Amino acid sequence: MTDVSIIGAGVTKFGNRQDVSYRELMAESVAEVLRTIDTEILPNNFDGLFVAAGQPELLNDQANVANLAAQVVGATPSLISRVEMACSSGSVAFRQGWMAIKSGLADMVLVMGIEKMTQNMKAASKGLCIVPDVEYESIHGITAYSGFALIANQHMKEHGTTKEQMSMVAVKNHHNGAKNPKAHFYEMGEITLEKAMNSRMVSEPLNLFDCSPISDGASAVILTKSEIARKFTDQPIKILGTAQGIEPSMGISNMSSITEWKALKQAANSAYRMAELSPSDIQVAETHDCFSIAEIIEYEDLGFTAKGMGGKFIEDGESHLDGSLPINTSGGLKAKGHPIGATGLAQITEIVSQLRGQSGKRQVNDVEIGLTQNLSGFATHHVVNIFGK
Amino acid sequence: MTDVSIIGAGVTKFGNRQDVSYRELMAESVAEVLRTIDTEILPNNFDGLFVAAGQPELLNDQANVANLAAQVVGATPSLISRVEMACSSGSVAFRQGWMAIKSGLADMVLVMGIEKMTQNMKAASKGLCIVPDVEYESIHGITAYSGFALIANQHMKEHGTTKEQMSMVAVKNHHNGAKNPKAHFYEMGEITLEKAMNSRMVSEPLNLFDCSPISDGASAVILTKSEIARKFTDQPIKILGTAQGIEPSMGISNMSSITEWKALKQAANSAYRMAELSPSDIQVAETHDCFSIAEIIEYEDLGFTAKGMGGKFIEDGESHLDGSLPINTSGGLKAKGHPIGATGLAQITEIVSQLRGQSGKRQVNDVEIGLTQNLSGFATHHVVNIFGK
Repeated sequence: MTDVSIIGAGVTKFGNRQDVSYRELMAESVAEVLRTIDTEILPNNFDGLFVAAGQPELLNDQANVANLAAQVVGATPSLISRVEMACSSGSVAFRQGWMAIKSGLADMVLVMGIEKMTQNMKAASKGLCIVPDVEYESIHGITAYSGFALIANQHMKEHGTTKEQMSMVAVKNHHNGAKNPKAHFYEMGEITLEKAMNSRMVSEPLNLFDCSPISDGASAVILTKSEIARKFTDQPIKILGTAQGIEPSMGISNMSSITEWKALKQAANSAYRMAELSPSDIQVAETHDCFSIAEIIEYEDLGFTAKGMGGKFIEDGESHLDGSLPINTSGGLKAKGHPIGATGLAQITEIVSQLRGQSGKRQVNDVEIGLTQNLSGFATHHVVNIFGK
Repeated sequence: MTDVSIIGAGVTKFGNRQDVSYRELMAESVAEVLRTIDTEILPNNFDGLFVAAGQPELLNDQANVANLAAQVVGATPSLISRVEMACSSGSVAFRQGWMAIKSGLADMVLVMGIEKMTQNMKAASKGLCIVPDVEYESIHGITAYSGFALIANQHMKEHGTTKEQMSMVAVKNHHNGAKNPKAHFYEMGEITLEKAMNSRMVSEPLNLFDCSPISDGASAVILTKSEIARKFTDQPIKILGTAQGIEPSMGISNMSSITEWKALKQAANSAYRMAELSPSDIQVAETHDCFSIAEIIEYEDLGFTAKGMGGKFIEDGESHLDGSLPINTSGGLKAKGHPIGATGLAQITEIVSQLRGQSGKRQVNDVEIGLTQNLSGFATHHVVNIFGK
């Protein structure tokens, strides 16, 4: 089967984007991705279009958004779908695009991810509460916030992870986001450890700065066969590995362990195997820091450090911009923002930008291999992708 | 690339299904599909799971339903996604499953479609209004009902199609649905032409019996490589052709023609080409009769009769159960029901049942080749599939 490469990847400004309509935000992501490609690409060049959107029916009173995207792009692809898997929608749509090229059924695929959440904050709050299992868990108070608080408490108990270490994740990610003009909190700039630790409590032990924000934004990636990628750009990025992992559960109460994520280890192992690489080969990564504790567990379950050593990994500065393995150079979900459908593709866009050496003040030197990791639910589902020049 | 076959296909009872929860309805569809396979299939046999669901966030206060489906099935597939494209979601998910097998990335895929609409009728009404372009059309009163009424009026004007011919579609489909115990209106039995023509006006010229109902239901199909299909059933069904067609528009105002559906002709031509068949080879079909006028236009644009002759086609009885080309033997969307996410897969299930000779009182004799056609929006997007023994 053919190999698949990214020829372009772009994101819109994330944040409160009530300055644009839903379709305008889609169009902005298309303009952004086309800007990263050297040659002209016309709407009828796309024979695949996959659109990641979490909850437009609830948040924006608009359904059928894949057809809307076709209209915005002016395309008539022979493979088209909207894809949703909560916070991992973007990465799952990316995998559909990869599959379309890999199978030979498409030659050029546009993958777009979008979420416009601030338009209706009441709906956005509801939306977050219905991602977990409503019938068995949310209704009893197990929402995203209290669920990840349970995870944090258990990790602290099992491994001695501290509240301070969690806050360090937030400080690092705001430090990076302050170097990313597209980030939701770019304008806010850096934050201190005191500010993070003393912010308003959300769900013990998680306070405000342990939580990613509600954001608007869109992102888009264009894929083609590796053998023709250089026709469109001098800097194609190869997909070396891609995998999903899932638990046969969406409930936190059924997970095999809430502090060692089986589905993440499954996805990571499959992606490393496909790429014929190991964790020590990764030079830059974007991981799913929906909550600070998530990033700490991801250090461990992605194999960047030993189980239980995630807190020490951030404390030692390993994941800092000047550390041994910079993580969430974009600012992560915490500071770049987390528009559900856009997140997975925005992570990929950051890695593409890093591998191309185009990340400006947050550029990591001499990176050849990067990784993205995107989760949904209580970490019951993960996508891990590995990219190379 | 490998060929793909269906080894099982099942539907739940359609109608008002407030007797079961959302997950129970999912489970019922899995039980139904497994009943149509000769050998045992275990949850870990599925390396692909695609779930078609239109609007569970709005209708059922539950998001992330692909993960819920994994829990219901007890599966940990390496390819998993929820898929949505309004009324064609089921067929689009089917195509994702086909692509997964075709590409060699999966060996056995479960495709599930579900919609539970009667739980919240107010949300269901809203849901139908937000499928068209809300910003440019719905807000001005162009909903599914008034939009298809425009289409009907224009077809009557251009081709002399009559109100009576439209009602004949409803009479035929209720006739068929009265032979299908799974149909929403099985219990209602047959209807007369007078009853159809004199029913309550919805949007001139469409009255109640020109419109498909709001239903609950689920359907599931299992796909594998053709070369191993006979390990699981003596009657595998081959996917001979499958294609999508889309206009670069979701608005009725931008369509190239509202009475000759470009996207349908594109999908049909691609599917016929892939199958190396022509319209005259089709012996049984399930087409998307969301409104009676749609079925009439589909006769034409699928190539079963000449443009403008769709009204005469039903009047002459060609599409009747004992006609030259029986259409919607299941009762169609009109009488079987139209639970959005389930519809495309329910159409496929009917064709599988017909090709296997298992359709009881509505069985068509000696059928070897069948077709399904599923649309979304104002017929701006279509999926056409062709199946053979």
